[in-house]
Amino acid sequence: MDTNSFIHDLTAIVGTQGILINPKDTKSYNTDWREIFRGNSIAVIRPQNTQEVANIVKLCAQRNVAIIPQGGNTSLVGGATPPKQGNQIVLSLSRMNKIRNIDKIDSTITLEAGVILEEAQNAAKNAGLYLPIVISSQGSAQIGGIIATNAGGNNTLRYGNTREFVLGLEVVTADGQILHNLRRLRKDNTGYALKQIFIGSEGTLGIITAAVLHLHPYPRSTEVALCAVPDLDHALKLLHLFNNHNPAALQAFEYISQKGMDLVLKQFPELKCPLETKAPVYIVIELALPAQGNGLRELFETVLEHAFEEEIVLDAVLAESETQRQSLWRFREEQAESQKRAGANIKNDVSVPISSIPEFITRATKACEDLCPGIQVVPFGHLGDGNIHFNLVQPSNDNGNDFMSKSHDLMDAVCAVVYDLEGSFSAEHGIGQLKNYMMPSWRGGAELELMQKIKQSLDPRNLLNPGKIFPDTST
Amino acid sequence: MDTNSFIHDLTAIVGTQGILINPKDTKSYNTDWREIFRGNSIAVIRPQNTQEVANIVKLCAQRNVAIIPQGGNTSLVGGATPPKQGNQIVLSLSRMNKIRNIDKIDSTITLEAGVILEEAQNAAKNAGLYLPIVISSQGSAQIGGIIATNAGGNNTLRYGNTREFVLGLEVVTADGQILHNLRRLRKDNTGYALKQIFIGSEGTLGIITAAVLHLHPYPRSTEVALCAVPDLDHALKLLHLFNNHNPAALQAFEYISQKGMDLVLKQFPELKCPLETKAPVYIVIELALPAQGNGLRELFETVLEHAFEEEIVLDAVLAESETQRQSLWRFREEQAESQKRAGANIKNDVSVPISSIPEFITRATKACEDLCPGIQVVPFGHLGDGNIHFNLVQPSNDNGNDFMSKSHDLMDAVCAVVYDLEGSFSAEHGIGQLKNYMMPSWRGGAELELMQKIKQSLDPRNLLNPGKIFPDTST
Repeated sequence: MDTNSFIHDLTAIVGTQGILINPKDTKSYNTDWREIFRGNSIAVIRPQNTQEVANIVKLCAQRNVAIIPQGGNTSLVGGATPPKQGNQIVLSLSRMNKIRNIDKIDSTITLEAGVILEEAQNAAKNAGLYLPIVISSQGSAQIGGIIATNAGGNNTLRYGNTREFVLGLEVVTADGQILHNLRRLRKDNTGYALKQIFIGSEGTLGIITAAVLHLHPYPRSTEVALCAVPDLDHALKLLHLFNNHNPAALQAFEYISQKGMDLVLKQFPELKCPLETKAPVYIVIELALPAQGNGLRELFETVLEHAFEEEIVLDAVLAESETQRQSLWRFREEQAESQKRAGANIKNDVSVPISSIPEFITRATKACEDLCPGIQVVPFGHLGDGNIHFNLVQPSNDNGNDFMSKSHDLMDAVCAVVYDLEGSFSAEHGIGQLKNYMMPSWRGGAELELMQKIKQSLDPRNLLNPGKIFPDTST
Repeated sequence: MDTNSFIHDLTAIVGTQGILINPKDTKSYNTDWREIFRGNSIAVIRPQNTQEVANIVKLCAQRNVAIIPQGGNTSLVGGATPPKQGNQIVLSLSRMNKIRNIDKIDSTITLEAGVILEEAQNAAKNAGLYLPIVISSQGSAQIGGIIATNAGGNNTLRYGNTREFVLGLEVVTADGQILHNLRRLRKDNTGYALKQIFIGSEGTLGIITAAVLHLHPYPRSTEVALCAVPDLDHALKLLHLFNNHNPAALQAFEYISQKGMDLVLKQFPELKCPLETKAPVYIVIELALPAQGNGLRELFETVLEHAFEEEIVLDAVLAESETQRQSLWRFREEQAESQKRAGANIKNDVSVPISSIPEFITRATKACEDLCPGIQVVPFGHLGDGNIHFNLVQPSNDNGNDFMSKSHDLMDAVCAVVYDLEGSFSAEHGIGQLKNYMMPSWRGGAELELMQKIKQSLDPRNLLNPGKIFPDTST
């Protein structure tokens, strides 16, 4: 292919402002944010509207050039990074960042793929509405990428994953057609639910250019508690009690292990645990409802009284102020940072059926301790939806190298328990190029074959984000 | 094809108990329950397990015989009825009716496709759980068909459509493979969400044999009110008020027109309207939460006090007993029956964005009155999710024939307004063979082309439920 003429034709579509070819300009697009994957590309192209995206796709199809769609470049699995060869283009949606419409009566927001999550959240809030996708990268992650990876987050137990918010999608297909499906309907049974195919497909089936999301009323009353619980079985009973009172009030139900609490207290000496009782399991619970004065405090008191009577909870503290609410949350939020400060660590983003969490933690902990005596096992996370960050920190008497040399064995040991309990090896981060080698052993047979059929049918020449999700057979 | 040898081979798979060929036995399977579509078939085959389904599909693929999957045969669009030619088989899932598992901690039920919805609801209730798919055919509709049509119902505004309950599916594909995807995970981002492709695909892409559904806590406190409201704009404001207090408490928000109220009072003289004020719009509101003593009455009183102050509500009555709750609901539930008693009538199951409901009702009413002076326009239904049953009753001075001769024009006039407001011509019933001719004009272009690509890729020989969803090009 004549690269100069290709770049000339690309420039004709998007103008000189819409194309980057200088390595110092393209570097941040060619590398993932954790700098694990470093790729190359012919150019980074930044269209301003859907028609430009369609024209780029048509041109690339003619020239047989593959396209790596990219949003905020916050993938944790290298899902938006080009390969090393440098014979592809990165298509960044970042200039398509208009909020087209917010409808207060429909509770919907219509917005382009390049809108940053936090901006969408703020726009919703200004209209009295709530976009409950809460993830740590929300200051840079973009709506298109969030939909393409079906992002999860803290509030999934109450509101579901990103998929549940998507009412309509606008998508450019692999042959450059525009799928106009920005309807904002709650009920529409007219043929195949095409939008569902693109949600979570990581840019391999089409390029999402705009979406309609369903919003919720903005929560205006909030209560937070930290509870000490004898074990994970009792934590599940506590979850059940809250669900059985007012499911919509339960906004977060997050797990901290005793080890995790100890690490935070050690690494952040300014934090003092407000509970007198030491316990194997701590839970941060947040209740929230749209209106003021919704009786959330009474709800907490009713449920906790019952929980004390049944010995489900050993000790509990209810935040008395906004400051105290934030300080209770810090025990959960500083989990990752306290682990980082404690030395080398390994992350596992896995899920199991909620009922299997106690067994999972017990078995996976033992498996890791057997492999690596002295290891610090520090699981934490979204107990309410079954998604545990089963993180591992090096033994304190180790220099970290021995520990990291066992990282593959340790991850395999954790995954073996997850597999046995019919869980998932990627709960909310997706597959990208980090985990695609695992697909045949976990989703092989009829499942993977069907996925390949769909890929083949919608993108027969493998021009959209090749090398992601499916194992790369070319190398 | 040698029919005798084919029947012999089918019998070898399912045994003589599993096959019906006598016309008197097959008639009820070959005809839809409203007796609008009358088809024929080589045989009705009733497998007992998933392996038998797979074997049947493989045999049919060898012999090039198409399969009509059938559940409770309650489709409103002829979605499970074979064509007249009689060269296909009906595959009834009704003998695959085992509930495999209920997990109280996970709040899940794993069950086979042939389980009747009401049985699944009862099994859930016995475990303290709630399966909130509430449809009028629940005494005979089966889980497989419900998933294959993504059924809606009364509780959609609170819980979503059937799609939202499906955590996992077991499916037999068109080439007879079994897709084992009965995981019960809330978060699982590992490749394409295959289950989403089968939900709502009306048996044209695979045969659903089992599912895992997510259940909710069983509602134990309930309050019902009937409100008189000045117009539909105010009805939407009232909906907003309830959502802004406790979204999980709002179980149903159902619309009755003044005409609809008058018809019920006329046709059911034993019913007396408990409201003194006549109004253009009536709303039946049901609040429900899992625990007793949840302050639902206080919630009603708080919201209604506010609504009276703002003149959103003209009059309201709150049920004081279970008997009164049921009698308030009858004004909504007798809508269809009172229309039937009033003469010939035409049904339109449509949806529009919630914010467009007032405009839709005004414009569609005028269009129908222009076409047919004296017509009784009686819209009612799921205001809270945008799904209106825009029903039409003959003029009272007409013999019904004139009116019915205009039925196509009247339906077209209603649909023209729905189209203009970016609504849907089938909100919850699906396409089947009743509405497939409408697909090109409503979903034509890139959407229909993509649907056809998926069909071609998963069922290249068109052996699964041919003639449904897509316009039949063979006749």
